[in-house]
Amino acid sequence: MAPHEIDVVEMGTTTMTTTTTSSIQSVDLVIFAAYVIPVIPRDVILSDHAIVIDKSRIIALLPREEAITRFVGLQERHLSSHIVTPGLVNLHTHAAMTLLRGLSDDKPLCDWLVQDIWPTEAAFVCPEFIKAGMTHAVAEMLRCGTTCCNDMYFFPDVVCSVLEETGFRGAVGQIIMEFPGPYGSGPDDYLEKAEPNLEKYAPGCHDLITVTMAPHAPYTVSDTSVQRADALAKQYKARMHMHLHETASECNDSENLNRESMSCHQSDQKMRPLANLKRMGLLSERLICTHMTQLTETEIDAVAAAGAHVVHCPSSNLKLASGIAPVTEMIKRGVNVGIGTDGAASNNSIDMLSEMKLTAILAKAQTLQSSSVPAVEVLQMATLNGARALGLEKDIGSIEVGKRADVIAVECDSIEMIPMYNAISHIVYVAGREHVSDVWINGKHLLDNHKLTTIDEAQVKKSVFEWAAKIHKHCVGDDGPA
Amino acid sequence: MAPHEIDVVEMGTTTMTTTTTSSIQSVDLVIFAAYVIPVIPRDVILSDHAIVIDKSRIIALLPREEAITRFVGLQERHLSSHIVTPGLVNLHTHAAMTLLRGLSDDKPLCDWLVQDIWPTEAAFVCPEFIKAGMTHAVAEMLRCGTTCCNDMYFFPDVVCSVLEETGFRGAVGQIIMEFPGPYGSGPDDYLEKAEPNLEKYAPGCHDLITVTMAPHAPYTVSDTSVQRADALAKQYKARMHMHLHETASECNDSENLNRESMSCHQSDQKMRPLANLKRMGLLSERLICTHMTQLTETEIDAVAAAGAHVVHCPSSNLKLASGIAPVTEMIKRGVNVGIGTDGAASNNSIDMLSEMKLTAILAKAQTLQSSSVPAVEVLQMATLNGARALGLEKDIGSIEVGKRADVIAVECDSIEMIPMYNAISHIVYVAGREHVSDVWINGKHLLDNHKLTTIDEAQVKKSVFEWAAKIHKHCVGDDGPA
Repeated sequence: MAPHEIDVVEMGTTTMTTTTTSSIQSVDLVIFAAYVIPVIPRDVILSDHAIVIDKSRIIALLPREEAITRFVGLQERHLSSHIVTPGLVNLHTHAAMTLLRGLSDDKPLCDWLVQDIWPTEAAFVCPEFIKAGMTHAVAEMLRCGTTCCNDMYFFPDVVCSVLEETGFRGAVGQIIMEFPGPYGSGPDDYLEKAEPNLEKYAPGCHDLITVTMAPHAPYTVSDTSVQRADALAKQYKARMHMHLHETASECNDSENLNRESMSCHQSDQKMRPLANLKRMGLLSERLICTHMTQLTETEIDAVAAAGAHVVHCPSSNLKLASGIAPVTEMIKRGVNVGIGTDGAASNNSIDMLSEMKLTAILAKAQTLQSSSVPAVEVLQMATLNGARALGLEKDIGSIEVGKRADVIAVECDSIEMIPMYNAISHIVYVAGREHVSDVWINGKHLLDNHKLTTIDEAQVKKSVFEWAAKIHKHCVGDDGPA
Repeated sequence: MAPHEIDVVEMGTTTMTTTTTSSIQSVDLVIFAAYVIPVIPRDVILSDHAIVIDKSRIIALLPREEAITRFVGLQERHLSSHIVTPGLVNLHTHAAMTLLRGLSDDKPLCDWLVQDIWPTEAAFVCPEFIKAGMTHAVAEMLRCGTTCCNDMYFFPDVVCSVLEETGFRGAVGQIIMEFPGPYGSGPDDYLEKAEPNLEKYAPGCHDLITVTMAPHAPYTVSDTSVQRADALAKQYKARMHMHLHETASECNDSENLNRESMSCHQSDQKMRPLANLKRMGLLSERLICTHMTQLTETEIDAVAAAGAHVVHCPSSNLKLASGIAPVTEMIKRGVNVGIGTDGAASNNSIDMLSEMKLTAILAKAQTLQSSSVPAVEVLQMATLNGARALGLEKDIGSIEVGKRADVIAVECDSIEMIPMYNAISHIVYVAGREHVSDVWINGKHLLDNHKLTTIDEAQVKKSVFEWAAKIHKHCVGDDGPA
């Protein structure tokens, strides 16, 4: 019997089972928590419940008293003042860019990329840089309650090896750009490098890793290359992960085919990029559209009709003055919207809890309705919607029997967290990254009472300081601060 | 010789003094820090400097090596991986409302007040509630790097006593409302209660406490009462602290004198509230206008010309869907703008670092200019501008010789804080409340390596849990969660 078929317990009900001592089942792990927010069903808070985990999957979710009579864990964790939720899915990262955190601020997207980020990447990005930055980012994400990221950056093989080593879950983008970069000479090279990974990490092939095709953006990838990427994505049942409609100039300059602008798409069509993708048949349930600050109602309907997914990156979009994605309207019209932090060079953190609060409060000001995007919606966006976007909703995104055990615990007894009247509100409006005490991915305890178990924190810091000293010397002309 | 006349050392210069061992001066405290951001002069980061403190004031700011040859501290603190900045000034709080944190979310200001907040306050607010909530709030503010708050709530005498006990700095509002509340029967009563405090805590009378007159808002206070409050403020050289132009309906319903609306001002004038205050001569350098999300350019110019001050409360304004104050335009036109968290019932934290990041990134999206309100501007808003608004700029708001030693230290060596390329950017865009390690107010060490020295944390928690249980039972009908 497959693990996910064992012991389907309806949540909130107490399955009356005649149990005797001899019938107690030994399992890998039982997590007892003051509050569990399963996300499915929506708007439910379970008090004093237990999550029973065996062979990496959740096999029961039931009241503590009942759990004690039926299960014994090889490991048991008692979280008496904690909220347990599904792990957060960070739906848009350039994770290794933690090494460039705060390198350049208070500049528009175009200047930020051309003057600061791209030259620094050209000078430094290599497999060793990716290994250092990705390990650093995984450490930060774990400490902030994230259990899965949708990454887009260079040297995806190195990213995969860090995920393997650390036990972190990720959808790893196979970057495609029209011009040479640190990782390849051009589209042919990028596409050729992608295919082995698409095969190796096709859905169901690996416990932690999946792969996306990641054509960078309309202004950096030609129509032909995007089409080739999508053909591969279709063949291997992978997602496409792309920056889209990030700025007004991207949309306007493409519509006017203003080739003077670096924001103009590479297509020869006088069209907005989304319309151009639709024209080519690429607006599909495979497409994860990142940013989307510029959208007409017709475009929102087109995205919804296609079943494409959107990543809202509020901090990055505000900081780079790109705009505010119409989250309320997208949700109303049926678009699946998740949340991402973007890279630490434009945020400057990769902290999903902070993005969640911002998502909730920004939507209210945008719509002038303080009921817009309530806490319960935001929690779903940051968990289940992210899983859906990645095609992983059967495995992660909620605390349900049969799913992988990707769960996090948030402490609720600090000065900043008390009092608490509603656990869902508290996760979104009050909790900070510092309150995340425990993280399990695939049932493995990767953050144990604030301590990383698969990452040597001292080694990460040493490595970050070394890279930062080199980068600082290159950009500023001296060694510090780092 | 008064302490602030001792040893005026120009910052950034090394005063060459012939020192011998015998000339070493004994002082109360020397803080050695990897980085000091003094705020004045603007945009300066001093590496490896020392802040020398004696009799509650800063008497020197100089390079470490020089400090060692000239001063010895009874206490010395070595902050080798920290940024030291002036303490943060939270320019708008209802501090004791921490007890109502998260009681009501996702509702508009009017419903939130009338349905949830006011009835709960009516049932619970009393001196014991204020004592518990204020002590809790001071603990939270200290742990978040705040050293001064501009508070508006009930029972200001109790607030003052908590400030005395904990050593926290505050401007304590003497609330005025037109109708009876937990603290008084009406304007006469409120005004009568205010005068002794105005006298006792007049400028210069107390090391920590000043007093403001705090007419709640145009829709809760009559023209006569506001005028009487201002007359007292003028007499005692106090500030006026008032909610103003918080929502569009406050402005529109006042302009149309729509008495059906609870947002309409109490005046009989068909005017926007700011114009009405100006008409009465109350728009002055004494006035601290909180929120101000609704402003025409003419109104901004009027505020600037009067020398009145504005408090930007971005989280609260977003969360209650009130709008976004035009910060960039106000600063450009010469208005002194500080930052406030508002109460924990509408935020739901009182964390200035988080407001600072939001201030910076929100201004960029609002103006579509990513250079708007850069990090250096935000840090000044959260420190010096707050001090100016309170009339305390000679004493606090920057790390300068002669000022009171209100300083904070932020750790920079955690996974989330590395690498660092610019300390000012890091304070605004990266640092979280959890990185605040040390806080001094008036030279007194109130947070010592994350530990509160004047507050019994266990006692605070016990008290908060007791109040929360009562409130939860009243509002929801059972005891928990609390």
